[in-house]
Amino acid sequence: MKGLAMLKIGEIGWIEKDRPACGPRDAIVKPLALAPCTSDVHTVWEGAIGDRHNLILGHEALGIVDEVGSEVKDFKPGDRVIVPAITPDWETEAAQRGFPSQTGGPLGGWKFSNFKDGVFGDCFHVNLADYNLAHLPEGMSLEAGVMLPDMLSTGFMGAENANIQIGSTVAVLGIGPVGLCGVAGARLRGAGRIFAVGTRPASVRVAKEYGATDIISYKDGNTADQILDRTGGAGVDAVIIAGGGPDIMMDAINVAKPGSVISNINYFGSGLGDQDVIPLPRVGWGFGMADKNIMTGLCPGGRVRMERLAEVVMHGRMDPALMATHVFKGFDKLEEALLLMKDKPKDLIKPVVIVEQ
Amino acid sequence: MKGLAMLKIGEIGWIEKDRPACGPRDAIVKPLALAPCTSDVHTVWEGAIGDRHNLILGHEALGIVDEVGSEVKDFKPGDRVIVPAITPDWETEAAQRGFPSQTGGPLGGWKFSNFKDGVFGDCFHVNLADYNLAHLPEGMSLEAGVMLPDMLSTGFMGAENANIQIGSTVAVLGIGPVGLCGVAGARLRGAGRIFAVGTRPASVRVAKEYGATDIISYKDGNTADQILDRTGGAGVDAVIIAGGGPDIMMDAINVAKPGSVISNINYFGSGLGDQDVIPLPRVGWGFGMADKNIMTGLCPGGRVRMERLAEVVMHGRMDPALMATHVFKGFDKLEEALLLMKDKPKDLIKPVVIVEQ
Amino acid sequence: MKGLAMLKIGEIGWIEKDRPACGPRDAIVKPLALAPCTSDVHTVWEGAIGDRHNLILGHEALGIVDEVGSEVKDFKPGDRVIVPAITPDWETEAAQRGFPSQTGGPLGGWKFSNFKDGVFGDCFHVNLADYNLAHLPEGMSLEAGVMLPDMLSTGFMGAENANIQIGSTVAVLGIGPVGLCGVAGARLRGAGRIFAVGTRPASVRVAKEYGATDIISYKDGNTADQILDRTGGAGVDAVIIAGGGPDIMMDAINVAKPGSVISNINYFGSGLGDQDVIPLPRVGWGFGMADKNIMTGLCPGGRVRMERLAEVVMHGRMDPALMATHVFKGFDKLEEALLLMKDKPKDLIKPVVIVEQ
Amino acid sequence: MKGLAMLKIGEIGWIEKDRPACGPRDAIVKPLALAPCTSDVHTVWEGAIGDRHNLILGHEALGIVDEVGSEVKDFKPGDRVIVPAITPDWETEAAQRGFPSQTGGPLGGWKFSNFKDGVFGDCFHVNLADYNLAHLPEGMSLEAGVMLPDMLSTGFMGAENANIQIGSTVAVLGIGPVGLCGVAGARLRGAGRIFAVGTRPASVRVAKEYGATDIISYKDGNTADQILDRTGGAGVDAVIIAGGGPDIMMDAINVAKPGSVISNINYFGSGLGDQDVIPLPRVGWGFGMADKNIMTGLCPGGRVRMERLAEVVMHGRMDPALMATHVFKGFDKLEEALLLMKDKPKDLIKPVVIVEQ
Repeated sequence: MKGLAMLKIGEIGWIEKDRPACGPRDAIVKPLALAPCTSDVHTVWEGAIGDRHNLILGHEALGIVDEVGSEVKDFKPGDRVIVPAITPDWETEAAQRGFPSQTGGPLGGWKFSNFKDGVFGDCFHVNLADYNLAHLPEGMSLEAGVMLPDMLSTGFMGAENANIQIGSTVAVLGIGPVGLCGVAGARLRGAGRIFAVGTRPASVRVAKEYGATDIISYKDGNTADQILDRTGGAGVDAVIIAGGGPDIMMDAINVAKPGSVISNINYFGSGLGDQDVIPLPRVGWGFGMADKNIMTGLCPGGRVRMERLAEVVMHGRMDPALMATHVFKGFDKLEEALLLMKDKPKDLIKPVVIVEQ
Repeated sequence: MKGLAMLKIGEIGWIEKDRPACGPRDAIVKPLALAPCTSDVHTVWEGAIGDRHNLILGHEALGIVDEVGSEVKDFKPGDRVIVPAITPDWETEAAQRGFPSQTGGPLGGWKFSNFKDGVFGDCFHVNLADYNLAHLPEGMSLEAGVMLPDMLSTGFMGAENANIQIGSTVAVLGIGPVGLCGVAGARLRGAGRIFAVGTRPASVRVAKEYGATDIISYKDGNTADQILDRTGGAGVDAVIIAGGGPDIMMDAINVAKPGSVISNINYFGSGLGDQDVIPLPRVGWGFGMADKNIMTGLCPGGRVRMERLAEVVMHGRMDPALMATHVFKGFDKLEEALLLMKDKPKDLIKPVVIVEQ
Repeated sequence: MKGLAMLKIGEIGWIEKDRPACGPRDAIVKPLALAPCTSDVHTVWEGAIGDRHNLILGHEALGIVDEVGSEVKDFKPGDRVIVPAITPDWETEAAQRGFPSQTGGPLGGWKFSNFKDGVFGDCFHVNLADYNLAHLPEGMSLEAGVMLPDMLSTGFMGAENANIQIGSTVAVLGIGPVGLCGVAGARLRGAGRIFAVGTRPASVRVAKEYGATDIISYKDGNTADQILDRTGGAGVDAVIIAGGGPDIMMDAINVAKPGSVISNINYFGSGLGDQDVIPLPRVGWGFGMADKNIMTGLCPGGRVRMERLAEVVMHGRMDPALMATHVFKGFDKLEEALLLMKDKPKDLIKPVVIVEQ
Repeated sequence: MKGLAMLKIGEIGWIEKDRPACGPRDAIVKPLALAPCTSDVHTVWEGAIGDRHNLILGHEALGIVDEVGSEVKDFKPGDRVIVPAITPDWETEAAQRGFPSQTGGPLGGWKFSNFKDGVFGDCFHVNLADYNLAHLPEGMSLEAGVMLPDMLSTGFMGAENANIQIGSTVAVLGIGPVGLCGVAGARLRGAGRIFAVGTRPASVRVAKEYGATDIISYKDGNTADQILDRTGGAGVDAVIIAGGGPDIMMDAINVAKPGSVISNINYFGSGLGDQDVIPLPRVGWGFGMADKNIMTGLCPGGRVRMERLAEVVMHGRMDPALMATHVFKGFDKLEEALLLMKDKPKDLIKPVVIVEQ
């Protein structure tokens, strides 16, 4: 088999590997649609999670089942499926504690392109097929569906963790595709006013479609000050951090009300100083006593999550396809799509690669 | 002053009373818009909360401030305001425990037309004005605004208590105005599929506008069976009970999945048998072990709640005016409007009385 | 193999069966200690969950591993283990939703003596050994340990679901062994005053050891009235229902404050009337609006739960052995022990059978 | 009146002031028992919350009511009372949102020695007496009772915010009096193993009494490493930060499991570097994705909180008097007691001043 891999930090390329073996509860899937993620960029060019050698990249895919193990009951070759970015071992200790994305160690539910080859191959392995795959609903476009495995799941989690109440005021810092899903997630949880911080025109347009009521640009001054100003100094009930370097935490804490939640969905690829830290502002954080809680998490995975996201899309609550600004045809366009994600031209939200099968 | 009162169980009429006194933290308000509620009907004609004599009815109002006490800071005569149905004493024991609507005993936050004269007078008294009134936002229509004090607050609470997750499947039993707000609330919390049980064409139309995906009618057979059938036997993640007699609880429990919430916003005006009970189905409830939790509550009140609901409306998340099917002009039309609520013609959702001031 | 079985409703007896097969992820375990449960009594003599034929009873056991499947990593023959009463399929839909005890349908995580032979055999089958067994800590007595699989897990769940806060006032209705664990659980969650309703001297003594501050007996009048009286009419923050017939729900609702939780851990073996119902008092329940929420659940199972319960015991937070009032030696004493549970003599809390291996 | 005041940053002294006026809902109270707090030390000698001039210090007191306003119903002169450190305005916006300690701005519920004169006077003013005072239960010693207003309330909050489950493993970083109450709170919420980090013999002894199972000393090496080592590398379910400089956050995050809570009750008097920050370790925090949530809060105040804490003490769940290592007799010993708190001799946990009235 062939795949687009991280050769080492800073370098990618196509490689050949043996087709993965299919265990009795597993599946081998061929891609129908693939999307590169900013975290692929962090992984390769920032070395964010450390070095990896000849590891096939990618964790966002729709596919068609090619082979299933002997114990798989709900899927068979030819089925069109949603493949979650996170495929936990659902029986394990962390899952029993309620943290399936952390099974087997921190971020351990994230296997594709982290602990095993990712989905940027002409076929790839999925563990626990019955519990980690979901059927692609009839009528869902590939451009929409490929946003579910990570973009919707992560972005919505940002809103879910933020304890948004009906009518809450929310700020979303960063409106790349995950941040846009944070905006959509905030609206899905009932937010009233939603500040979206960003400037790229394509993103701004979709942010408004997804429910942003105020667009905040750094070009008009400090973004935290602008939000404080527009709320009469009160700040917001919830902040979703969906982009930025380590200093973004300073803004996030400062725009949050006493009695609020800061919900992080940013993948911090680098930190400040020798200690490699993310800084909290002591005074803005109320000396540690202002009820400004900081939530984190890793994209929820698994079958039930994908099915619920599909419900949201199929009932017209939100249209993920608006984010697919650049659509490529053909597996061999994957490298071009990934480099596009790295370069982030102004009109890009998310590149998608449609694969003929 | 003059008002429309419950004279005794089963009888209403116009009465004259002294204008209420205004304490230092209180306000006297004149009505701008009023709406009769099904609970006025329960109170008068079912005697649901016991007998009351010459008590002015009504708890849904927008108004204009006529007088404020010496300590009131944020409101002055002439201000247009939203008056919540529930006006708690916010310092008290139950509020400190987190249950402001239950201050001073069960349902004690509900003062209008329960413990003191309601809002169906040419003026009425509001306790703790700074904390129980909210400014009516410029641009909000009276027909929309008068739905906030009870309909939106109660209906949304039904969804809030139901632990709805993004993509959850929800059933709303009853689509009178509170049930319709249950539907809208379910969508605001992120529900995917929403079953709405009801038949009245006006309600069905608005239910779809508010997010219902499936309309279920008793004319097509047992409604619980229909929902089970359409979910492949699985049942739903959450049930909102928004109408019906005591037996509605049987349906509610039976359509709920193992691992679900039944959220009641129905005002049970009467019960079954000598013991005056509401029945749970032993087997459907899993012998008491199926993780089918039953939540209750009384409409949240107070200023912050009203302000948050106003945010939802002003940012276009939901249009309450769709429920105002019958709009009367003039305070003296109140009796006609209330009797309409009692008789419930087919094309009625909610009558509203607009009062000239 | 040999086991003590339910032959049909109302009848038990010893039977011979083939030794169960051990799947690759499973284990075969021989008993070290066994305990009969009131639910065995409900199952056999009330037919509470319907008829069963020649089904080996029992779901409370400590054991010694006799055989493990090829994929089992953490256990080997000879290991001494705690066997939870509930052994979920952890990958499945209900578990992904957060309700592992309801996997595969209502109460579906409860396999022993429900869907497959129970633990009252000279050996028995455990599914998913690595995730459903826990190592018996060195130094834990068999009398103490055998209380973990169901008594502690269920009783503590009663307290966990009751939203007990530090200093809350709690009533536990029924002080059989599960109710006693409800008392202990309430103290473990931080309750201040704990009312325990019961009369049997052995149970009363242990209730006090476990944290009960007030013992309430029906001999002194209506128990709900007594609790209301002792709380100055206020009622309690939380009620744990741990015994009684269907009418117990009336008392439970009536002693609960507006703004409280009623947490059920009672296995309702029979209901009222033709509809087979459990009655809620309409007025006491505040017409459905008094914020008196009713929680249910089935005993949490699995490895992590057992390990956490073991931590509680090993660090001296609570001594389960106090409940073992009748200790039998020898597997053949099982029938005698079960009949004792059925007859409930005054000095009984829980019979335990210690098996030589 | 006379009181012990902060004259400016770094300087304290006795001053004379006019007796405060008593509003209609307020009370004037004379002290029965007083305790200096580490936060008095932070306030004066670190200038942690900025400069203050001639502000009477202190927020931990029991007292005797000297005067009540005309609207006060539940208290009268001569009543012995618990005075919470935090006395919120319970009607206000932040309280309606669920954050009473943050009323009127960050930490706004903290009035004593922050926005108005504290309790270190021969009399002091309490706002909203009916809702912010609690009756001192008969039989509670002054040494025990004076620990409730801040020590128990803050320490227990640390445990409450930490989402401790029955059997959780908890680390408490710092065992001054608030940390000791964090230990006790962890046990009250059901923790199994509790690591207490500290070395002072008096504190170590009480930590064990309060439920600590493992004492960790920096003298035996890096404390985070020791805890990781003793848990086989797993880390803990919950961390309570109850002392230390800004770098304590690094340890806290590093000992927390993926899927855990870090609950801060430390008053950060100073931060790192020019930006005055508290650092999070990027890698230890899982790049922002390891489900390690960070909770904060300010001591809960008000009457219901004090009553609940009193229940805990009166029912023997925990003995606060163990912390009163140094008991002074006489109001004029207050300065000596405060300086003792500043100097922290080895045998000190908490100094208490008993005032004759």
